[in-house]
Amino acid sequence: MKVAVVGLGLIGASIAKALHGRAEITGIDRDAGVVEKALGDGVISRGGPELSVAAGSDIAVVALPVRSIVDAARDLAAHLSPDALITDTGSTKASIVSSLDSFWPCFVGSHPIAGKENPGYHASQANLFAGRACIVTPGPSARGDCLERAVRFWEDCGANVTVMDPVKHDELMAVISHMPHLLSFASMGLAADLPIHRGLLGAGFRDFTRIAAGDPKMWRDILLSNREELLAQSRLFQQALHTFEQAMEKGDAQRLEDMLTLASETRAHWRMGAQRTSKNR
Amino acid sequence: MKVAVVGLGLIGASIAKALHGRAEITGIDRDAGVVEKALGDGVISRGGPELSVAAGSDIAVVALPVRSIVDAARDLAAHLSPDALITDTGSTKASIVSSLDSFWPCFVGSHPIAGKENPGYHASQANLFAGRACIVTPGPSARGDCLERAVRFWEDCGANVTVMDPVKHDELMAVISHMPHLLSFASMGLAADLPIHRGLLGAGFRDFTRIAAGDPKMWRDILLSNREELLAQSRLFQQALHTFEQAMEKGDAQRLEDMLTLASETRAHWRMGAQRTSKNR
Repeated sequence: MKVAVVGLGLIGASIAKALHGRAEITGIDRDAGVVEKALGDGVISRGGPELSVAAGSDIAVVALPVRSIVDAARDLAAHLSPDALITDTGSTKASIVSSLDSFWPCFVGSHPIAGKENPGYHASQANLFAGRACIVTPGPSARGDCLERAVRFWEDCGANVTVMDPVKHDELMAVISHMPHLLSFASMGLAADLPIHRGLLGAGFRDFTRIAAGDPKMWRDILLSNREELLAQSRLFQQALHTFEQAMEKGDAQRLEDMLTLASETRAHWRMGAQRTSKNR
Repeated sequence: MKVAVVGLGLIGASIAKALHGRAEITGIDRDAGVVEKALGDGVISRGGPELSVAAGSDIAVVALPVRSIVDAARDLAAHLSPDALITDTGSTKASIVSSLDSFWPCFVGSHPIAGKENPGYHASQANLFAGRACIVTPGPSARGDCLERAVRFWEDCGANVTVMDPVKHDELMAVISHMPHLLSFASMGLAADLPIHRGLLGAGFRDFTRIAAGDPKMWRDILLSNREELLAQSRLFQQALHTFEQAMEKGDAQRLEDMLTLASETRAHWRMGAQRTSKNR
């Protein structure tokens, strides 16, 4: 299997490492230093800054920031045979899949849920996807055999694959990933001015804001590309927050306890649920 | 040293375990079964459901939910000598300290920052406070020797002690603990209706909402007793969220990136800071 990876950051380089010894990997990155490092480390067997080195690949993965994916995939296609599978690793899917679905019938979107705070080649690791979820999102024109190959590809990387409609993916991610990040980002402003006692951050704050250290360019793209869904969710969130504020203002202890019980039970239910990982397809 | 612990939940029983062999512990809990269990486990050397068993103690710790602390401390005082130190473990301090400061000159408020999601005796552990922060909050009438004893008491439990004004404590906690909890609680409503894919919760959601599993009665009391500060912080938070929404609505990528960079840098700064733990007093 010949695999081209476009973008040797955390995700791209981790794919290359995960497939080490089982695929011939071509690495493409506009940063020539990173390509050289990856060649030197034996993470890729050939590479360069130009998309043309992807020629002859069976599978090409575009592992770039969300807003760069569509253009890169279009340019990449010129160098590939029509049977080559193109996929990507963007955190939003509706816009990317609708742009590429009819353009390349062997395109299937992907979203490996395996982020870390540290971006970049140096943070990559062979087991980044092991046991983690990857959502594969075919568009209406995607060929069945290409979908199958995309699923197998991510399973080869170690992931548990779920197939999902790209719009449903974005709705789900708005709630379970993008909103938590947005709220965490917005929270940092509150605390930035405090003469903070660093030894005291154990009080829930550390976990709550861990995700606020995410890569700004990556999150700029995510927030913009999923903004309609996010703005709708943000309105719902503010309504929910407002019901808590009202109960606090009124000193309505019973109401508050009921709302907190519901939140706590919902969370506890998920915590248990999260332990039985399964392939949901 | 004779120590009375009122409330053998997570915090109270962990204090008893932390001081095992170095103090004579009397345990008081209205649940006779818990007292019996603690006696059987050797966690306390005597105990019962009545506050009167605290008689003769050098130090009495009220480890009850926030809204029960003041009444319990007042009742407890009737059984203690005037030199006995009374302290508590409540997560808010201004209201408790102002109620008890002039009533008992050897009262000093405390807040060990060592919560876990699981409340209750069964979750207690001897090392719960080891290396964790504990904020000690004397009121204006607190005797200096009593403050010293309170600090030493928490150091004996293994904590790193910080002395702070009770009002400042509540302002700080509103930002670094109560607001994150409130936002996490409010978030759960969004996701409760989703046909959630449990295998996918790695996307930031797990950490972000871990704290939403907190004990509803405890958090009801915290949200109510610190509500003025919390409502003010909630307004500031919604202003911050609104600036993100505006940048998203306008598609202002540069503005968004600037705000995300600031959030990310603030968080990264704290992450580093949190590693050099220190005694801040």
